Amino acid sequence: METIKGGVTAPKGFKAAVCAAEIKYKGRTDMAMVTSDVPCECAGTFTTNVVKAACVMWDKEIVTSGRPMQAVVVNSGIANACTGKEGYDACEATAKAVEKSLGIDFSTVAVASTGVIGMQLPVDKLVNGVTAMSKSLDESIDAGTEASKAIMTTDTINKEIAVSFEIAGKKVTLGGMSKGSGMIHPNMCTMLGFLTTDLKIKKELLQETLSKVVADTFNMITVDGDTSTNDTLLIMANGLSENDEITEKGKDYDTFVDALFYVCRYLAKRMAGDGEGATKLFEAKVVNAKTEEDAKLMAKSIVGSNLSKAAIYGCDANFGRFLCAMGYSGADFDQNDVELSYVSKAGTLKVFDHGTPLSFDEEFATSILKADEVTVFVDMNEGSAEATAWGCDLTYDYVKINADYRS
Amino acid sequence: METIKGGVTAPKGFKAAVCAAEIKYKGRTDMAMVTSDVPCECAGTFTTNVVKAACVMWDKEIVTSGRPMQAVVVNSGIANACTGKEGYDACEATAKAVEKSLGIDFSTVAVASTGVIGMQLPVDKLVNGVTAMSKSLDESIDAGTEASKAIMTTDTINKEIAVSFEIAGKKVTLGGMSKGSGMIHPNMCTMLGFLTTDLKIKKELLQETLSKVVADTFNMITVDGDTSTNDTLLIMANGLSENDEITEKGKDYDTFVDALFYVCRYLAKRMAGDGEGATKLFEAKVVNAKTEEDAKLMAKSIVGSNLSKAAIYGCDANFGRFLCAMGYSGADFDQNDVELSYVSKAGTLKVFDHGTPLSFDEEFATSILKADEVTVFVDMNEGSAEATAWGCDLTYDYVKINADYRS
Repeated sequence: METIKGGVTAPKGFKAAVCAAEIKYKGRTDMAMVTSDVPCECAGTFTTNVVKAACVMWDKEIVTSGRPMQAVVVNSGIANACTGKEGYDACEATAKAVEKSLGIDFSTVAVASTGVIGMQLPVDKLVNGVTAMSKSLDESIDAGTEASKAIMTTDTINKEIAVSFEIAGKKVTLGGMSKGSGMIHPNMCTMLGFLTTDLKIKKELLQETLSKVVADTFNMITVDGDTSTNDTLLIMANGLSENDEITEKGKDYDTFVDALFYVCRYLAKRMAGDGEGATKLFEAKVVNAKTEEDAKLMAKSIVGSNLSKAAIYGCDANFGRFLCAMGYSGADFDQNDVELSYVSKAGTLKVFDHGTPLSFDEEFATSILKADEVTVFVDMNEGSAEATAWGCDLTYDYVKINADYRS
Repeated sequence: METIKGGVTAPKGFKAAVCAAEIKYKGRTDMAMVTSDVPCECAGTFTTNVVKAACVMWDKEIVTSGRPMQAVVVNSGIANACTGKEGYDACEATAKAVEKSLGIDFSTVAVASTGVIGMQLPVDKLVNGVTAMSKSLDESIDAGTEASKAIMTTDTINKEIAVSFEIAGKKVTLGGMSKGSGMIHPNMCTMLGFLTTDLKIKKELLQETLSKVVADTFNMITVDGDTSTNDTLLIMANGLSENDEITEKGKDYDTFVDALFYVCRYLAKRMAGDGEGATKLFEAKVVNAKTEEDAKLMAKSIVGSNLSKAAIYGCDANFGRFLCAMGYSGADFDQNDVELSYVSKAGTLKVFDHGTPLSFDEEFATSILKADEVTVFVDMNEGSAEATAWGCDLTYDYVKINADYRS
């Protein structure tokens, strides 16, 4: 497997376009469209929030119906959540605009939104945007990059990646982009993410694989503990690499899983590190836990704790907050088994050993914590399961961004 | 029932003392002791965090053993959590110092700590503190107030209350104090709280009542979602009001429950409103839910959401965040049934009605949100259960306080 330049347009047969529809933001692109030359097998994972955005319901229907997917239209600015029937009608109008412009069956067009909840979308602007984008669809790498920028809200960096790998002698490419910075808390994967591939694979296997990989990647990140109403991750596989279709698990399947895991973990970590107001990526790795479920609960609880996050921001080695967060995570363990260390490129420092705090050099601790990626490494000494979770620090800027988000 | 001046020393036969032991803070009192002239029936509720502080384990043993309680010694500055056997030994040394000075059996002396986790207590300072306080025990109202100040950490105001009521012709008094400002998230009741009463009541009934009242008061507040390692609420009932012992439910019992509820709700709300960095009390009231469990989940989720709290701080009527928080709370409901309003002393404004956002006057919304107590009122229209939860806004100062708490 090799990382290559680009994102969603890197695989064969995918095109993208963007426009500035002025849905909420001014002076920047805020709509993106990704299309495939041919209908695609598709799979998706969606928010578990009971309050689902209209577009989540629209896309879920496509993924579960068994229909193919051939295009996705995304807007940033308004989430189209808590918008009743009018919101669902906006999804249909958008999909029908694609059918009118490109002749793609509207029932195979996914839509995704991100932004303010409880506000109606301006349908005219969406439809005009689709019409404009239909004329500028482009298969270049740059077109994919522009799409990854158009879907940003409070993100400070665009997130895209592409990899290529070989399946039975055929070169296959997998590309992806995502956005997400606030209201990020795993359950599916609080975010929008779009993956494209020219792989040929059976639909059921595609969905199973996506769900499995999401559990260890996007679902292991958090920015603020708030599971969004709009979480959507879609993958479209158009089969244009002409590999023999993957229909069962085996060597070829494993190659694809590795690539998908790599791509999803990359995008997930980029989102966590670019959390609203964040100055650094905050990773928790829990090893030798009794069960994987316990390891996940503890790792996520550490990176999700406001107090842990504030201490990481302040470069304060207040490790008791991690133990506290592990303690209320729902996992069962004995604090007398636990070893806890700080790890970054500046070094490793153990601060807690089998129930007892160790004395340590505060200056060294601070130097470790000043790195732009900091890991809390926890050895439970109770089993062999492990998990890693990613988050970010809690800063003044998080509060600033969210105290007046709508204006 | 009548609210009277004072706190833990208001009931008959209770004394308090404080001292400046320099455990962490300098230039202020940081230890408090409360004693009863006679042994008390006692009850307590404790943190559900798996990582329990040494003092929690010490107190829990007293409460569950059936032994009486006659004194409690509190220090602020170091939590005595994650401190292994050395931490437990510090509890015993403190209790034995009380026995030596006052002749109170050490196995009836509770201890409580609050502050930094993962740091050992200076036992010499604790023992010297107990010796000094033993000489200055005082039954005055002021002595109770001083105790409520000595147990503060990042609290900006001390919290105490006392009420008196009549049980079968006898005047009974109930007093209390608590501290808590950060690492506040209900489960028991993330805080330290101490209640005293001269009521005569059967131990089993006292524990049952305390647990029940805590569920609707202290367990319904949150500051930051972090359930502490040290949560402790203790009640001591010395029986000196000479009422006929309450041994079963009935009119007298109900009078006591009302008083206990009033005192606990007062202290809980004071803690929520004094959350670290908070500028206002943030209340969520959910009515007409399917079940009480659902109502509680939703109310707590609203006041616990970082995004909701930041919007409350910014006086931004971004109500979609409350619906989002309700949606991931674990409660099941249909967004098309929901009505949502903002309420404060400045007025009431409905912003969401049966699945559809309403247009509203932003200036009026801001004026409501500028009040120092803001309520989000949610009518589920699906049943008849209700719940209220209390929290505070998320501010720059929360981050500031917690980015470098240890120094």
